[in-house]
Amino acid sequence: MNRKMVLFLTGKILQIEALLLLFPAIVSLIYNESSMWAFLVSALFAVALGFALTLIFRPKTDVIYAKEGLVIVALAWIAMSLVGALPFYISREIPSYIDAVFEIVSGFTTTGSSILKNVEALSHGCLLWRSFSQWIGGMGVLVFVTAVIPNLSDRSIHIIRAEMPGPIVGKLVPKVKNTSRVLYLIYIALTVLEIILLLCDGLNLFESSVLSFSTMATGGFSIKADGMASYSVYVQWVITIFMFLAGINFNLYYLCIIKRFSSALKSEELWTYIVMVLVSAGIITANTLPLYDSLSDTIRHSAFQVSSIITTTGYGSTDFNLWPSLSKAVLLILMFTGACAGSTAGGFKLSRVVIIFKTIKKECQRLIHPRSIRSVKFEGKAVDDITRHGVTAYLGIYMLCILGIFLLISIDNFSFETNFSAAVSCFNNIGPGFDAAGPLSSFADYSAFSKIILSFAMLMGRLEIYPILLMFSIGTWRKNR
Amino acid sequence: MNRKMVLFLTGKILQIEALLLLFPAIVSLIYNESSMWAFLVSALFAVALGFALTLIFRPKTDVIYAKEGLVIVALAWIAMSLVGALPFYISREIPSYIDAVFEIVSGFTTTGSSILKNVEALSHGCLLWRSFSQWIGGMGVLVFVTAVIPNLSDRSIHIIRAEMPGPIVGKLVPKVKNTSRVLYLIYIALTVLEIILLLCDGLNLFESSVLSFSTMATGGFSIKADGMASYSVYVQWVITIFMFLAGINFNLYYLCIIKRFSSALKSEELWTYIVMVLVSAGIITANTLPLYDSLSDTIRHSAFQVSSIITTTGYGSTDFNLWPSLSKAVLLILMFTGACAGSTAGGFKLSRVVIIFKTIKKECQRLIHPRSIRSVKFEGKAVDDITRHGVTAYLGIYMLCILGIFLLISIDNFSFETNFSAAVSCFNNIGPGFDAAGPLSSFADYSAFSKIILSFAMLMGRLEIYPILLMFSIGTWRKNR
Repeated sequence: MNRKMVLFLTGKILQIEALLLLFPAIVSLIYNESSMWAFLVSALFAVALGFALTLIFRPKTDVIYAKEGLVIVALAWIAMSLVGALPFYISREIPSYIDAVFEIVSGFTTTGSSILKNVEALSHGCLLWRSFSQWIGGMGVLVFVTAVIPNLSDRSIHIIRAEMPGPIVGKLVPKVKNTSRVLYLIYIALTVLEIILLLCDGLNLFESSVLSFSTMATGGFSIKADGMASYSVYVQWVITIFMFLAGINFNLYYLCIIKRFSSALKSEELWTYIVMVLVSAGIITANTLPLYDSLSDTIRHSAFQVSSIITTTGYGSTDFNLWPSLSKAVLLILMFTGACAGSTAGGFKLSRVVIIFKTIKKECQRLIHPRSIRSVKFEGKAVDDITRHGVTAYLGIYMLCILGIFLLISIDNFSFETNFSAAVSCFNNIGPGFDAAGPLSSFADYSAFSKIILSFAMLMGRLEIYPILLMFSIGTWRKNR
Repeated sequence: MNRKMVLFLTGKILQIEALLLLFPAIVSLIYNESSMWAFLVSALFAVALGFALTLIFRPKTDVIYAKEGLVIVALAWIAMSLVGALPFYISREIPSYIDAVFEIVSGFTTTGSSILKNVEALSHGCLLWRSFSQWIGGMGVLVFVTAVIPNLSDRSIHIIRAEMPGPIVGKLVPKVKNTSRVLYLIYIALTVLEIILLLCDGLNLFESSVLSFSTMATGGFSIKADGMASYSVYVQWVITIFMFLAGINFNLYYLCIIKRFSSALKSEELWTYIVMVLVSAGIITANTLPLYDSLSDTIRHSAFQVSSIITTTGYGSTDFNLWPSLSKAVLLILMFTGACAGSTAGGFKLSRVVIIFKTIKKECQRLIHPRSIRSVKFEGKAVDDITRHGVTAYLGIYMLCILGIFLLISIDNFSFETNFSAAVSCFNNIGPGFDAAGPLSSFADYSAFSKIILSFAMLMGRLEIYPILLMFSIGTWRKNR
């Protein structure tokens, strides 16, 4: 274990966080808000701690293995969250530090759950910091770091692998640094496009930016108490489309850029995603038709909600808590599946769902013809056994985590529906659940203990469990190689 | 596919069912009930259909492969259920045939869910048939058949494997027929012991038998409207202990009989089971202490409910629907895990849970030391890859089934808690769920469509999914080998 490298990079990340904290500081300055000082103090603290870490733990080698990659990611995310919570706490806009940590973890992990009962009371600086944290967390802070830190060896692919969700993560271009840059450029381009489209409807730059940050990151922090309900039909459709786009594997956009459209369109995961969105929206439209005035309203709310939940964004254009059971059941299933790997969306990921479906099919064939040997193919390639076992083992640990979180937060005596959907929603980085954790409610009433558990749940969900698990296992730190 | 053999054996099973139908007929005769005729007519129908099948489809060879084993089991269980529902329907005690099928499927699969709003209105014959069907289904009707049909080749192990739950099913003694007999003898001995213990408290022979049938099968059909609540403390403890005993792998009893106690006590699954029961009962006792008058009452209700749910029996000594969320969450997790493989209990089975835990541990180790090759061990033996993949693939299909059932029954607009717990409860053969599917409610209000879905859910859960899946896949029937 290259401990020095782990702590060194954590220091680097805090320095970068200090820089990022200047954005909300500037916004606060523009709007003449006192929260500016909270951001500056936090940035100063981050930069000081960051420098201290990089000075003390200057690594002798930059050797990074998979293990280091996982631990760096876990530690960096926890450090970033603990520091990122400071502005909320120092400005007293969120008086409890645990609440502030919950809020910023919900940001970085692109969950979008909130402990705020009235989000509209927040300053512009804090609102921007919430949405901006989602935007950073969406593509990954370490992916960003690998794009900007000079002289980082190609071994940093281990870091990207640990941070990027999905069973199979490869390089787009030969150099890791360039892969990171390509991903961020696509991400920035889509975000800017959405900002422009929202500006067209008369939203101001602040509002357009904040919404676009949260949409493209599939985060779901809103700046209004009623979520997305009061925005225009046009804005709702723009956001529906951009949530959908953010749920697609970013590698496919790269393929489109280099004009390999036919390769992009061959993606099994993409088609699974499209079919699931259409079928789910269809079922919900039929099921909720009696609730709305017109067919077009029904389609809009259905498409918005399906796009929002499958991409784990969590925006609400309407209170889906009041929908019939069937529609809620469809949403719950989308909460589990999530969207494509390599996108900013959370959840179990459709590629894993497809691989598991194929594994089951193979298992059935083995029962009929015990001696047949067929490999499981995905995206045209045979899935090797290690990946396949990784996926099925992931399902096991995924279910255990959800049940464990559900058990622990059940200590707060909320309803079954509240607790179960809160556990699923936080772990899958969605945001709202059902009942008391529904889209128009907040997590404010949960106990401090449950908030800590749910914060860990969000981190585990975003980082796909293993980094956090490894960080807490003694064996990881013990052996010095 | 040896179609003739499949249909021939289905015919045999119907003949045996005709014999089994004579028991409730006799009970009806003793209590002078008109339902006697319903049983006799049903038995006559079963025997006629059975003879027809065995005459038409006399097989040329008795070759049975795994595939035939699976399809025989699926077909036999469906045929048995469709015929077994007749007495309820003919006697008009359950006026709807779909309801009658639901009730008998719930019986054979040892689920214990009921569509009856007032079970006390049933005749003694019908009450016995419900509980007796559980007793038959508990150890498996085909296990019974292989124990009694003469001249069956040792290939019938495929049938036992398909019917006995759990990832690894082996022979206890060299001959299959003798394995089946040993299992049934242990089962009968324990049942008789429970009957005697219940008789000691002054219960009559009918009541003792009916309760013992349902307990040892981990079925959970009660003959009183309030479940087990009105029975004495002594009876409740006897039932708690026998539910617990029925959840242990029957192979361990065999080891005890041949005096290999130390081998029996080395079972990892047994210890997992004991620890889970003790820990769960401990948590629930602490959590529900304020609800009951005394500590002993609390312990009794906790132990009873934990034993009842983990073994998927489903008896209720109290309305656990009113318990705090934490206790309900513990019960929900027990609903998922189930008890030991090779017992009469349903659910996912603890042996699978243990294997999945170990697979996850191995996966974590692989992340730290990518080149290490360690095998997963269970019960002292290395688990081969095929078994391990089978277990993880089973988890995938298990989750898909639960979500699918949940989705389909959500069309009936009951609460999230009702539908979700009903799906989990039926699929795991438990019986009651929460809310409107709670221990003091019935499934009567579900639509006919949902009742059919839930009936299939119970069958799929009892037979561990694959037999039913295979039966409905065209590939299974097509090729004649």
